[in-house]
Amino acid sequence: MKLIVEQDYAAMSRVAANVLLGKMYQQNRVNLAITAGNTPIKMYEYLVQEVKNKPYLDHVHYYNFDEIPYAGEEGFGVTMTHLNQLFFHPAAISEKQIHVLDEKNYTEQDARILADGGLDLILLGIGEDGHFCGNLPGTTEFTDMTTRVSADALPGMCEVLIQEVGGASSKCPDFYVTMGPKSVMAAKSIVLIANGRKKAAIIKKAFFGPVDSHVPASILQLHPQLTVILDAEAASELDIL
Amino acid sequence: MKLIVEQDYAAMSRVAANVLLGKMYQQNRVNLAITAGNTPIKMYEYLVQEVKNKPYLDHVHYYNFDEIPYAGEEGFGVTMTHLNQLFFHPAAISEKQIHVLDEKNYTEQDARILADGGLDLILLGIGEDGHFCGNLPGTTEFTDMTTRVSADALPGMCEVLIQEVGGASSKCPDFYVTMGPKSVMAAKSIVLIANGRKKAAIIKKAFFGPVDSHVPASILQLHPQLTVILDAEAASELDIL
Amino acid sequence: MKLIVEQDYAAMSRVAANVLLGKMYQQNRVNLAITAGNTPIKMYEYLVQEVKNKPYLDHVHYYNFDEIPYAGEEGFGVTMTHLNQLFFHPAAISEKQIHVLDEKNYTEQDARILADGGLDLILLGIGEDGHFCGNLPGTTEFTDMTTRVSADALPGMCEVLIQEVGGASSKCPDFYVTMGPKSVMAAKSIVLIANGRKKAAIIKKAFFGPVDSHVPASILQLHPQLTVILDAEAASELDIL
Amino acid sequence: MKLIVEQDYAAMSRVAANVLLGKMYQQNRVNLAITAGNTPIKMYEYLVQEVKNKPYLDHVHYYNFDEIPYAGEEGFGVTMTHLNQLFFHPAAISEKQIHVLDEKNYTEQDARILADGGLDLILLGIGEDGHFCGNLPGTTEFTDMTTRVSADALPGMCEVLIQEVGGASSKCPDFYVTMGPKSVMAAKSIVLIANGRKKAAIIKKAFFGPVDSHVPASILQLHPQLTVILDAEAASELDIL
Repeated sequence: MKLIVEQDYAAMSRVAANVLLGKMYQQNRVNLAITAGNTPIKMYEYLVQEVKNKPYLDHVHYYNFDEIPYAGEEGFGVTMTHLNQLFFHPAAISEKQIHVLDEKNYTEQDARILADGGLDLILLGIGEDGHFCGNLPGTTEFTDMTTRVSADALPGMCEVLIQEVGGASSKCPDFYVTMGPKSVMAAKSIVLIANGRKKAAIIKKAFFGPVDSHVPASILQLHPQLTVILDAEAASELDIL
Repeated sequence: MKLIVEQDYAAMSRVAANVLLGKMYQQNRVNLAITAGNTPIKMYEYLVQEVKNKPYLDHVHYYNFDEIPYAGEEGFGVTMTHLNQLFFHPAAISEKQIHVLDEKNYTEQDARILADGGLDLILLGIGEDGHFCGNLPGTTEFTDMTTRVSADALPGMCEVLIQEVGGASSKCPDFYVTMGPKSVMAAKSIVLIANGRKKAAIIKKAFFGPVDSHVPASILQLHPQLTVILDAEAASELDIL
Repeated sequence: MKLIVEQDYAAMSRVAANVLLGKMYQQNRVNLAITAGNTPIKMYEYLVQEVKNKPYLDHVHYYNFDEIPYAGEEGFGVTMTHLNQLFFHPAAISEKQIHVLDEKNYTEQDARILADGGLDLILLGIGEDGHFCGNLPGTTEFTDMTTRVSADALPGMCEVLIQEVGGASSKCPDFYVTMGPKSVMAAKSIVLIANGRKKAAIIKKAFFGPVDSHVPASILQLHPQLTVILDAEAASELDIL
Repeated sequence: MKLIVEQDYAAMSRVAANVLLGKMYQQNRVNLAITAGNTPIKMYEYLVQEVKNKPYLDHVHYYNFDEIPYAGEEGFGVTMTHLNQLFFHPAAISEKQIHVLDEKNYTEQDARILADGGLDLILLGIGEDGHFCGNLPGTTEFTDMTTRVSADALPGMCEVLIQEVGGASSKCPDFYVTMGPKSVMAAKSIVLIANGRKKAAIIKKAFFGPVDSHVPASILQLHPQLTVILDAEAASELDIL
């Protein structure tokens, strides 16, 4: 594990953008799975400046790693909608470069990525409960590949999903889909970003505590090419500093 | 995980030799950690033929990944003694290329490997109890780097160690040393070999069952570059075939 | 440049087979361009034993790098006919894994290889005149990608081509096709094999003399991942030994 | 060859900085050879911001690839003096990370780099005469490794060197040292940067013309991992755009 601690959110975001950009300037196809959420907002601002209207980055391909469909609606789910807002639209990424995972094609995700040459990098955030992608504690096993998680997998899951889809219970789906821990660990490199004091406890637990199925992200410690990029607040409980 | 099943022990051994040889013909330094034991005997016979007196392989460096010292004796412990017999002496590998882990230097093993550029490949066997290296169930945690394991870590451990050192209880050491699961997972690639019907059950459990600390090798499933090479007997309980 | 000298043709062929095999046991697609001719005959004998009926090598893809069509005939040209005899048929390689270059599709060869992820390795022989692939002295430039070479490109070329197509002048084509030096240099690694006393002079000239357009193979010295595998006779003029 | 054209000098410099940064965030040692001169000035300004006081980049090692000694003076020569001003001092790079090539140790440069694991990337500029590093037309051969070039190697060389050392003929050295074309081509990746209209002609000649010993940089076309980063002016003679 390579641990990078930066003083603040902007500096952390800049380093994360640098790491992603560093993978992009290749001659051959590059496959990146990227995260939505609040943590990467500033990182995408930096990325957009370097990626927009750059034909020499046409060989970079993007994947989402989870999706919550809007019940009863056609079109993109929650994750792709956010990624479009955060990055794909402002960076003018062409559709040919975007490989959408959704509730209909999730059983093909792992074979498709393998056929595409594997993921060069997967960018993850982490939840205060230790989840990454849609791997909430108790919903998936470490050995799961891309899978579906039922809306009744956990008590309270329904409320979480309703919030994700915007508050209307009518839009709450029966299940969401996610790359499982084994799918994620198959990537050539993993980058995890976190900022803010409220992430400090889980960072300590997930990356300096035992591997524990109740803390899904704890498994990521064992990947041979893991980089964890934090701001000082997210790193504030680490003795190592 | 790449699964390779060969019809018999000789064919399995030939493929394992091929995989190791394939890593060796490089221009830059290559670092290999290799296993002692019965499983690799024939593989080393093949390797010796291709490696002995080949000055163009002088850039290949070898590491042992565990060691049981003989109590009260100077010199090599059980693992290095076996590796010398199986491979280093018959292949006439020079001392400069052999990086000995022992009970005195084990705290430096991980930093030394990192400074040397990391392991390009670690070759493992598996025990019927699911152990790899010296990671017997109950002796190490998934997050352990190279560590020592006390002779009283488990009931019955003393008897195991006495057998390993040749039967004399006077030679039973207080502890042995081993690369832990996290050290092993840091290698760029992992190759695990197994043969024989008596390994069939643990192969199914470790590579097609859950990640479970009682089956240490089960963690290896999550390495992005794992190759498992079996003979037909060791693969005989797999539904996949 | 990594130089490997073995005592005889069989040992040289075994090492060449080892190097190719070493590239094959991967999880992701592997792309190999391979040579016909007399030099690799024994190497293919070794390879067939390790490759035939091995479903775990289905992700290995093969490319020919030049082709001489038989004039007035449909079907494979000289190179593919030889590769079928030497390797593809005895090793029972499936058509899906064989990517044929011919006189009709040569303008697409470089783009196709790039889209497939690039060549992981290209295996070359060398002619006594310093040619590799179809790059005879005076027919191509170092900067050529895959190209056609006219039957009247050189005095005497017609006779050479007639011999290649089996002696009948009616089968002599107007042109042949070949990957050019720049196409070959784009491979991630290059392996060149040569055996026999009659290759000794050109080996010295091409790999220990100046870069010279009259010795096309002399450019290969400058590839960052070049391995040259010789028997003792082919190496007999090298001072280095 | 990957060709990147940016609208202006600042954008070109940002991309060059991104490419270098992208190589830096690794777990293992990274070896970079970098250029002095005017072209990289702004790139170093960007780099300093991301590299200064970052302990997580301590594993990045830097090499200079040529040196002009000041005659009669101890201490650094022209190149290292410039690199110190442009980058090493403002970025507070520690001495342990800087591997100085000079007129005393140049015969060891290639072996040292090989022992260090090879160059991951070499960053080059280009002269209007097609030189890179100290490889002026007529001074070195394509097959040269690191070598010395005499002050009388070319007519007018003495005047060039006097200008380089600051104008005083008393400081003009008898020779300078440089990595030769073969040394440079041995790097895993090459990045060449150029800006301004006065570079437009040589860019066209070196990267879209024949390989020609009178245009030393023309050999770089044949490297499998070459990236050329230009501003619009330096690219203004290219038909490709």
